[in-house]
Amino acid sequence: MVEDKEQVANGEQVSKKGAKKLAKAAKKAEQKAENASTAAANNSGGDSAEDHAAGRYGLSEMIQSKDKRSERNFVPVSELSGQVGKGLVWVRGRVHTSRAKGKQCFLILRQQSSTVQCILAVGDVISKQMVKFAGNIPKESIIDIQAKPVAVSSKIESCTEQSLELSVEQIFVISQAKAQLPLQIEDASRPENADDAEGLNIRVNQDTRLDNRVLDLRTPANQAIFRLEAGVCRLFRDILTEQGFTEIHTPKIISAASEGGANVFTVSYFKDSAYLAQSPQLYKQMAIAADFDKVYTVGAVFRAEDSNTHRHLTEFVGLDLEMAFKYHYHEVLHTIGNTFTSIFKGLRDKYAKEIESVGQQYKVDAFKFLEPPLILQFADGVAMLREAGVETGDEEDLSTPNEKLLGRLVKAKYDTDFYILDKFPLAIRPFYTMPDPNNPVYSNSYDMFMRGEEILSGAQRIHDPEYLIERAKHHGIDTSKIAAYIESFRYGCPPHAGGGIGMERVVMLYLGLDNIRKTSMLPRDPKRLTP
Amino acid sequence: MVEDKEQVANGEQVSKKGAKKLAKAAKKAEQKAENASTAAANNSGGDSAEDHAAGRYGLSEMIQSKDKRSERNFVPVSELSGQVGKGLVWVRGRVHTSRAKGKQCFLILRQQSSTVQCILAVGDVISKQMVKFAGNIPKESIIDIQAKPVAVSSKIESCTEQSLELSVEQIFVISQAKAQLPLQIEDASRPENADDAEGLNIRVNQDTRLDNRVLDLRTPANQAIFRLEAGVCRLFRDILTEQGFTEIHTPKIISAASEGGANVFTVSYFKDSAYLAQSPQLYKQMAIAADFDKVYTVGAVFRAEDSNTHRHLTEFVGLDLEMAFKYHYHEVLHTIGNTFTSIFKGLRDKYAKEIESVGQQYKVDAFKFLEPPLILQFADGVAMLREAGVETGDEEDLSTPNEKLLGRLVKAKYDTDFYILDKFPLAIRPFYTMPDPNNPVYSNSYDMFMRGEEILSGAQRIHDPEYLIERAKHHGIDTSKIAAYIESFRYGCPPHAGGGIGMERVVMLYLGLDNIRKTSMLPRDPKRLTP
Repeated sequence: MVEDKEQVANGEQVSKKGAKKLAKAAKKAEQKAENASTAAANNSGGDSAEDHAAGRYGLSEMIQSKDKRSERNFVPVSELSGQVGKGLVWVRGRVHTSRAKGKQCFLILRQQSSTVQCILAVGDVISKQMVKFAGNIPKESIIDIQAKPVAVSSKIESCTEQSLELSVEQIFVISQAKAQLPLQIEDASRPENADDAEGLNIRVNQDTRLDNRVLDLRTPANQAIFRLEAGVCRLFRDILTEQGFTEIHTPKIISAASEGGANVFTVSYFKDSAYLAQSPQLYKQMAIAADFDKVYTVGAVFRAEDSNTHRHLTEFVGLDLEMAFKYHYHEVLHTIGNTFTSIFKGLRDKYAKEIESVGQQYKVDAFKFLEPPLILQFADGVAMLREAGVETGDEEDLSTPNEKLLGRLVKAKYDTDFYILDKFPLAIRPFYTMPDPNNPVYSNSYDMFMRGEEILSGAQRIHDPEYLIERAKHHGIDTSKIAAYIESFRYGCPPHAGGGIGMERVVMLYLGLDNIRKTSMLPRDPKRLTP
Repeated sequence: MVEDKEQVANGEQVSKKGAKKLAKAAKKAEQKAENASTAAANNSGGDSAEDHAAGRYGLSEMIQSKDKRSERNFVPVSELSGQVGKGLVWVRGRVHTSRAKGKQCFLILRQQSSTVQCILAVGDVISKQMVKFAGNIPKESIIDIQAKPVAVSSKIESCTEQSLELSVEQIFVISQAKAQLPLQIEDASRPENADDAEGLNIRVNQDTRLDNRVLDLRTPANQAIFRLEAGVCRLFRDILTEQGFTEIHTPKIISAASEGGANVFTVSYFKDSAYLAQSPQLYKQMAIAADFDKVYTVGAVFRAEDSNTHRHLTEFVGLDLEMAFKYHYHEVLHTIGNTFTSIFKGLRDKYAKEIESVGQQYKVDAFKFLEPPLILQFADGVAMLREAGVETGDEEDLSTPNEKLLGRLVKAKYDTDFYILDKFPLAIRPFYTMPDPNNPVYSNSYDMFMRGEEILSGAQRIHDPEYLIERAKHHGIDTSKIAAYIESFRYGCPPHAGGGIGMERVVMLYLGLDNIRKTSMLPRDPKRLTP
């Protein structure tokens, strides 16, 4: 079965006088069409003259914006239920699965996370050849179909559109996928806790997923995760803008390794060397000293840390904020805490569908939080740990296991997955952290936790240049290297505090996922720089 | 005049038993207080015993969040007019100027872009010493004052609050600025077109500004520019979100120099080398191939270009979008064009105050645009240039002078500062640009211009992997180096188009400013990596 080019392109005339390049492209498309038609025609035994459906199926020419062809008015899959009984519609989507059996072909069309069953049955409109063609379209190919939405009597459990199916009259391939896929969407979408006593179900491991991220991202869970992630950013920005914060943008290429030079990537900068910023903190503080009062910034931060854990990335998105206050850094701490609460409420209320989609693949326990958020003193956290039999020093940082244990203890006692730990020991915080004026062991600094993992670290910063120098010296820092930083505070600077949030961690921990690579669209770690 | 510590801290008790560190800090504050008091007391001739205002002025202790001191209820300067006749208020702001003259001190207090006149006159409440103290507070210091807002009969032209002044009763320095500033806010704020026939006015050159950006950013124009810039980002995101776009985040560290390896920064990545992304394009396209349909991303992009011009930065913020379409890339072109129009309207309607503030320093002509935006063919643009006497080839890119001239011609003919130039010659666009199917000389690509300068470059991208390989080879590109990119299109990909916008350029050109360093908070260029 070799189709006329006019038919292939749905009746569109292809000018023979077209440019050389176009001709080449067209020829290629033709060649492709022939190959595919051959494939589709295999075992058909018929010849094209007998095909009464000719012109109603085939491979489209590559869409090159030749004309605007407004005659196909597409209906989104999620809106098909409103079209039942109203005649023919056009739908563009992917072939999720396709199965020809005798005189029928059942095809599931997928559009993002929506799926609908399509049926082609040999008859007045559909030919045997057309059924075979449809059955042979490689999975994941993008197709245009013209079809009648028809109500079905029994629910179609395998599709999101359960009350209808599409009775297909035309079908054209818009972009054909390779026949062999490196992973099957069905496998990549399989619930983690699916009943599979015999271990027969194929699972897709993380590296295969990430190596083929374009396919992996098509699963309903991933479609939902990254929409929810966009929601986190949107909520963060909207909540802060509402409160008078100004968005700023801070440079990523910096001249000096700000925090001591460890864990920093070096960049060749023309004839010099430069570094990638590990945080926008210095710049946020400069914006405060420059009278912006309350600022936030969303952007890439870089950590040259050779950590291969479930929660470390070498590049991630920081949600950072900084705020001048009048008397007490708790003005800022409460602002941040309430921002988290508002984000949690926003996700719960506006992203219920996405959370449910993720839950269909992964075990997602609803995220619990209190309003206002729970604030514990670091010393109280240490006491809770000791009560649970853990030995930990007063000025010792929380180890990751202790952090997690404390999260469980707090959950058990207060029924919240989010809490704030205030007044960390001074000894374990950076030099610019304001010491606690009432107790020299502690500092005006805080961490915030989701499901027992740290997602924000913050503090009141020292805004007095002389005191800052004293503290830097105490930490053995060469103050000549941070002269520009110190200089920022010599022209009057209000007291201020802030913090930085790892976006991917927020999404991972909100959903209770087990690996930060699940919430980074294209993760970077010491072993992964591609795709 | 040496004040008691209790007075210094406004009656607050400072514990003598405090920690060693605190004691040190306190001692430092004390020392500072003494120094300043000495300065303030110079020429006073009086002694502290005679000071009936003692305790009503001085240097505050460093605000270290000791207690929450809620007794000072601050009123923003912009809301003072509602407080006239209602008694005493507290205000925190900067000393913009201060001038003691005999028994009076006139002080202008600044809060971001708002200013108010304050007056201290010797009498029952205020002492001679207090007036001198106030007159000696270095400019840019942050102070707390308690004062009565009083209506004035004649407008105070030098302040934004023109109908009232503050009759001060208490004044405390919260954060003292250096006495010698590297630039004066007044000089940095001076209108560019001010009447200055004798050239007496000091101007602050750009490097001095950028070297002291914390001060420079305090000018009303800069306060406005960066608020408006935040507005551009907000509008861009809101307008696209409204239309179903999803925000994504793309990696900045990449394994291969995507666009041929020129102008790319190299990063040391553990034992390997990596590069900084020159654009998020490949990743946006992957998101399209991964069914996200319409995406945008806001983030840093890097160009290792040794260009020292008014419009080049080595790091800037990209506003990028990419969108699947059905038949014709004009679906995307119109979406982008209308996004610009909506941004322009949003700025005009919501940022009138900021635009006016910038206009008080720089010449800002209102930005004109048409609705829907003007779309010209590249060939028509060339014709207009030729009509104006310019010699330029059919397949030649627009030089910067020709770009600007065309902008002027378009403005004269159509009265718009924004327009779209469609169908660029294929020869001057990147390999992944879709050729025009109707004319081999052209391509499905476009630039958009503001005030005659390019601010967006975009195109339909080739979504067919074989055709992409053909075009890459035609450009002499080693296809093995872009294998991952090509692979993204092998699993079905809808036709798509997009573009990238330079955020700083949009703000610069919207306001008609002359240098992109004016719209980058902390600009990076081949010669500047600090602060």
